[in-house]
Amino acid sequence: MKILIVGLGLMGGSYAMGLKEKGHQIYACDINNESIEYAKSNNLIVDGCDDASKYIPTMDMIIIGLYPNYIVDFLKKYNKLFKKGQLITDLCGIKTYFILEAQKYCGDAEYISHHPMAGREKSGVMYANTEMFKKANFLITPTEKNTAHAIEMMKALGLDLEFGRISVVTPEHHDAIIAYTSQLTHAIAVSLVNADTDIDSKNFVGDSYRDLTRIAKINEELWSELFFDNKDALLKKICDFERELDDIKTALINGDKELLKKKFISSTNHRKEME
Amino acid sequence: MKILIVGLGLMGGSYAMGLKEKGHQIYACDINNESIEYAKSNNLIVDGCDDASKYIPTMDMIIIGLYPNYIVDFLKKYNKLFKKGQLITDLCGIKTYFILEAQKYCGDAEYISHHPMAGREKSGVMYANTEMFKKANFLITPTEKNTAHAIEMMKALGLDLEFGRISVVTPEHHDAIIAYTSQLTHAIAVSLVNADTDIDSKNFVGDSYRDLTRIAKINEELWSELFFDNKDALLKKICDFERELDDIKTALINGDKELLKKKFISSTNHRKEME
Repeated sequence: MKILIVGLGLMGGSYAMGLKEKGHQIYACDINNESIEYAKSNNLIVDGCDDASKYIPTMDMIIIGLYPNYIVDFLKKYNKLFKKGQLITDLCGIKTYFILEAQKYCGDAEYISHHPMAGREKSGVMYANTEMFKKANFLITPTEKNTAHAIEMMKALGLDLEFGRISVVTPEHHDAIIAYTSQLTHAIAVSLVNADTDIDSKNFVGDSYRDLTRIAKINEELWSELFFDNKDALLKKICDFERELDDIKTALINGDKELLKKKFISSTNHRKEME
Repeated sequence: MKILIVGLGLMGGSYAMGLKEKGHQIYACDINNESIEYAKSNNLIVDGCDDASKYIPTMDMIIIGLYPNYIVDFLKKYNKLFKKGQLITDLCGIKTYFILEAQKYCGDAEYISHHPMAGREKSGVMYANTEMFKKANFLITPTEKNTAHAIEMMKALGLDLEFGRISVVTPEHHDAIIAYTSQLTHAIAVSLVNADTDIDSKNFVGDSYRDLTRIAKINEELWSELFFDNKDALLKKICDFERELDDIKTALINGDKELLKKKFISSTNHRKEME
């Protein structure tokens, strides 16, 4: 297939790397010329520039690796160029916020969304790697407008990139899950680090603190968008979490050791099930 | 040195392993005969049984690896056997709760406390390993009753076990730090897992959720003790953390993207400093 990657960052670059290995011809668009040059000289792409109109007409698939707020803008801009038989998708971490709008502006192509649940605390094509896909989830989030063929093509994409697990879920279910497993965890890590009032404590951390705060290094532009674009689901999960933490606080205040143990047993069992 | 380890669990066993390698003669007491037999047949200890009185009189150092609530009981029981020149210490994760009491019941020996900030989500001597000490913190928490000699002996113990960093702090400072870097992180991990209301979400987790919940598998007996024995410091840190999380909630509700970004930038900078 001829595939265009729009936005050549960490994820776009890693997609280019993985798909090129499987024999696809990869093209890329990015406003940053250095990223294009890097990808060309490292043989990740056949060609690239800052003008998508040059490539769109001949592509089989277009993968949009832009921030959520720019996806619909991109589609509106190139609306007229999209052709029947083309598949357009995105890598975005939230779905309900823009997906219906995106499907309105894909012209004669088919728009189907997916979410690769992998990432690193680095950004930029120079950190591209396919290793992070190996154990990760690849979620396909079709709406009722999507065809069975498009869903199969997305599954093939996940297989080509060697994701650990490929699933199909509704955009609504996706966003509820993501609010919990991804956005709430980032809100917690950020708050934990920001709650540090002791200049000395960084010298006395153990593995648990290191693990819980790794993702507190966060891209503020991308993540503030993701938070706002999934605001209702995230607020609900923050409240669920705070209720649980309040239970621990109450147990401590009331000297209720049995309640505390019950919470620990419950979390232990639940966490074991996950493994 | 002849060293007695009281309580041959994961930590006691790992101490035996590391100290034996450095040429010390290790003895152990445990009510579980299987643990003793395992340690003997794996050459971790010279001898062991369930009766500490058999070994105490000839020991240079006694390392107590019991739960916090049993430390003073142990000292009271063997009070009369402790001799001048002997050093008694413990591995306990909280300090102010029992340390003054412990120093009352150490007879003619000197009692000095320390905390090895290492551990695993496994318990039992069969999981003993010294690898977990390599990058970990070893905190010595003397009171004004302790001698410079005892502090030096503790430093030598940390060096023998090849801890990454050895520090001396007051018991009060230790407990304030631990409330934040260790107990709050465990309260958060437990609450995050318990806040899961979707039976399906475990199938859609990424690295961040896995990292944040690893320590939600928790020994409920030990940790409920640790929480209660450091209750005031922990409650304070839970409140500090909840205030930060509430700021994120408020930013979301008010549509205050700048505040959210400020929080992300702050956590990113703070976390980078730690590295």
